[in-house]
Amino acid sequence: MTLSQRRNRLRERLAAAELDAMLVSDLVNVRYLSGFTGSNAALLIRTNDDTPVLATDGRYRTQAARQAPDAEIAIERACGPYLAGRAASEGVQRLGFESHVVTVDAFAVLTKAAGDWTEMVRAAGTVEALREVKDAGEIALLRLACEAADAALIDLVERGGLRPGRSEKEVGRDLEALMFDHGADGVSFETIVAAGANSAIPHHRPTDAVLAAGDFVKIDFGALVSGYHSDMTRTFVLSPAAQWQLDIYDLVATAQRAGREALAPGVSLKDVDGASRQVIAEAGYADNFGHGLGHGVGLQIHEAPGLSASAVGTLLAGSAVTVEPGVYLPDRGGVRIEDTLVVGSGPSDTPDLLTRFPKELAIL
Amino acid sequence: MTLSQRRNRLRERLAAAELDAMLVSDLVNVRYLSGFTGSNAALLIRTNDDTPVLATDGRYRTQAARQAPDAEIAIERACGPYLAGRAASEGVQRLGFESHVVTVDAFAVLTKAAGDWTEMVRAAGTVEALREVKDAGEIALLRLACEAADAALIDLVERGGLRPGRSEKEVGRDLEALMFDHGADGVSFETIVAAGANSAIPHHRPTDAVLAAGDFVKIDFGALVSGYHSDMTRTFVLSPAAQWQLDIYDLVATAQRAGREALAPGVSLKDVDGASRQVIAEAGYADNFGHGLGHGVGLQIHEAPGLSASAVGTLLAGSAVTVEPGVYLPDRGGVRIEDTLVVGSGPSDTPDLLTRFPKELAIL
Repeated sequence: MTLSQRRNRLRERLAAAELDAMLVSDLVNVRYLSGFTGSNAALLIRTNDDTPVLATDGRYRTQAARQAPDAEIAIERACGPYLAGRAASEGVQRLGFESHVVTVDAFAVLTKAAGDWTEMVRAAGTVEALREVKDAGEIALLRLACEAADAALIDLVERGGLRPGRSEKEVGRDLEALMFDHGADGVSFETIVAAGANSAIPHHRPTDAVLAAGDFVKIDFGALVSGYHSDMTRTFVLSPAAQWQLDIYDLVATAQRAGREALAPGVSLKDVDGASRQVIAEAGYADNFGHGLGHGVGLQIHEAPGLSASAVGTLLAGSAVTVEPGVYLPDRGGVRIEDTLVVGSGPSDTPDLLTRFPKELAIL
Repeated sequence: MTLSQRRNRLRERLAAAELDAMLVSDLVNVRYLSGFTGSNAALLIRTNDDTPVLATDGRYRTQAARQAPDAEIAIERACGPYLAGRAASEGVQRLGFESHVVTVDAFAVLTKAAGDWTEMVRAAGTVEALREVKDAGEIALLRLACEAADAALIDLVERGGLRPGRSEKEVGRDLEALMFDHGADGVSFETIVAAGANSAIPHHRPTDAVLAAGDFVKIDFGALVSGYHSDMTRTFVLSPAAQWQLDIYDLVATAQRAGREALAPGVSLKDVDGASRQVIAEAGYADNFGHGLGHGVGLQIHEAPGLSASAVGTLLAGSAVTVEPGVYLPDRGGVRIEDTLVVGSGPSDTPDLLTRFPKELAIL
C-alpha cells in the first residue's frame, strides 16, 4: 500500500465522521501517513484534497522534501498552530485533532489558531486504528526486524554467550551488538536479560548479576528496522535443570501455543488472552501471570490491539501482535515465551510466525 | 539534596501559588521527586503533608517499595485519576496539574475523578523549574556521565578508530560500545557521526558512508549514568586539512569559548547565545549557524533552560547547560564544538567544565 493509499483510507474515515480535515500531531502517525521521520512536525489531511500539508521547522527542510515528496511542505516552527490556522483559512468547519496526544496547553494554542469558525473535534486513535492492520510493506519490514533478532540470538548461543560467569549486562550488550551485525538499525527497547531469581521479575533491567549453573535466563529483546520493531522472549536454563523448571517451562510453552492457536480474525481480544491464561490458571498459577498476553507491534513497540482480560474488540486480519504468557515464581525464577505473529486473513488461516527461534527448552 | 528536600522546595512553591496539592504526571518529574523509575506512575504532593503518594501498577509493586521507601505506594493502574480522586477525598480544593503533559483526553478523565469541588489548576513547568538548578548529587552523576563519554572518545581515537575506510555507522557503534565499557548505563541519544559533506547536516544520522582523507568528522554523543545525560560534540579532520577547514574550525572554537565565558548567574539567556553568535556573524557566517547555542541537560537530554536568540529569562547558578555553536557549509562540511558545563554560583565564578576532551583541532 502506498502512502497515498493510507491517506485515502484515512480520508474516507474523516468523511464518514463528517470531518473536513484532520490535524495529525503524533509523530509516529505523521511518519505513517507521510514518510517523514523528523522530530518536530504535524500533518494536515483534507477530505477534499489528496495533497497533505506537512509542517516542520528549518532543520528539516531538505529531509522533508526527500522523505515526503508528494506533500506540500511548510517550514514553520509551531507546526500544529500553523496548520490549524491554515485549515481555518481554507474554510474547514470541523477539524479533527488527536485528543489523546495533544496536551491541555497545546490545545489552548490550537483552538486560538483555529479561530471561532473552525470547530476542533476529538479524533483520538483514528490513525492508530488504521495502523492496526499492516500492509505488505510493513509486514516485510517486521519480518526483517524479526530475522535480525533471530539471527542475533542464534549467534549468541552458538558462540557460548550464555554461560555461567557472564553478567546480565554483558549478555545484553552482546545481543544488541549482534542485532546490529545482522542488519538492525537500532534496538526495539532496552534488552531484558534476567538470570536466576531475577527472571521472576517481568521487566527486569540487566544488572551486574552473574549467570550461574541452574539459572533460568530470560531474554526479551527486539530489533528495529526502518522504524519497525520486533519483539521476542526466550527463556533458557543453564545446566543442570531442576524438575520445577522443566514443569513451568512446559506449562508456559503449552499456554503460549494455545495463545498462538487462538489468533484469527474476528476472535475477541479477551478470548485470545483467555485461551492462554486458562492453561496457566488450570495448573494453579493464575496469580503468577500478572500481565496481559500481548500487544500490537509495528512502528511502535506497543500499539493496538492490546490482548488482555479487559480488552474490548476483536482481532483483525493482518494485525501484528505478540503472544507472551509468563509464569513468575518470586525469589525462584520465571519463564516467558514470546513470539511476534501476523494474523491470517481467514478464520482457518495459521498466523504468520515472524520470530522463528526455536521454543523447545534449551538447557545450555 | 535529598528527595524530601526537593519535595519541600516544590511544596513551598505550591503554597505560594495557593495550591493544596499537585498531581505530577510526567515520569521524569515523578522520578526527580520520588526516585521511582517505572513506566506507569503518578505522584501526589500535598502542601500540608510531607509524605507523597506514589501510584503505579502491579508490575512495579516491589520496585516502587524499593525505590521510593518514604512514599505511600498505591497500586492502581489508572494512576492519575486515582490520585485526583484521592486528593478530592482529602478535601483538596485547588489541585495543580501538569497542563503541558496531560492530554486533552486524560484531562477529561482527571476532571471527572476530581469531582465538582476540586478545581484543577494549570501548573505547567513547576517541577521543571526546580530541576533547572542541579544539586550536588545530580552534578556528581552528570560528571560521571561526561567522564564515560570522554574516556570512550579518547579510547576510540587512540585505537585508530577514526580513519579513512571506516563507515559512520561503524564509528558510532564503536563509540557507543566504549561508553558502556567506561561505565555508561546507556546512550543519551543516537550517536551522530557525520563525515565529509554530511558534517554540514546539523543532526545527521550515521550511514554506511565511508570516512575519507580530508574529511571533517563531526561526532555528537553522550553517555547515560543513573538517568543523567552527558552531551558533547567534537569535530576532527582526517589529514590533510585544507585551509578553509582550519579557518572555520578556528572560528567555531572562538565562538564556543565566547559562549562558555558568558555563562554566569543572572546573565540573560539570549545574551549567552548572542556572545557566541556574534563571533560567527562578524565573520560573515550568521546564516550558517541555524540553531540555538545550547540547552539545559540532566534527567532529560533537552531541558530548561534553552539558550537561543529568542530565549526569555536569565541563567541560574547551578544550571547544567550545553554550549554548542556550529558553522555548516552545505555540500562541503561543518564544524560543531559542544561542551556540558555547570554554571558557577557567583558572577565571576568560572563554570565547571564537565566534558574534558581537548578542543584543539586534531588532524588524524
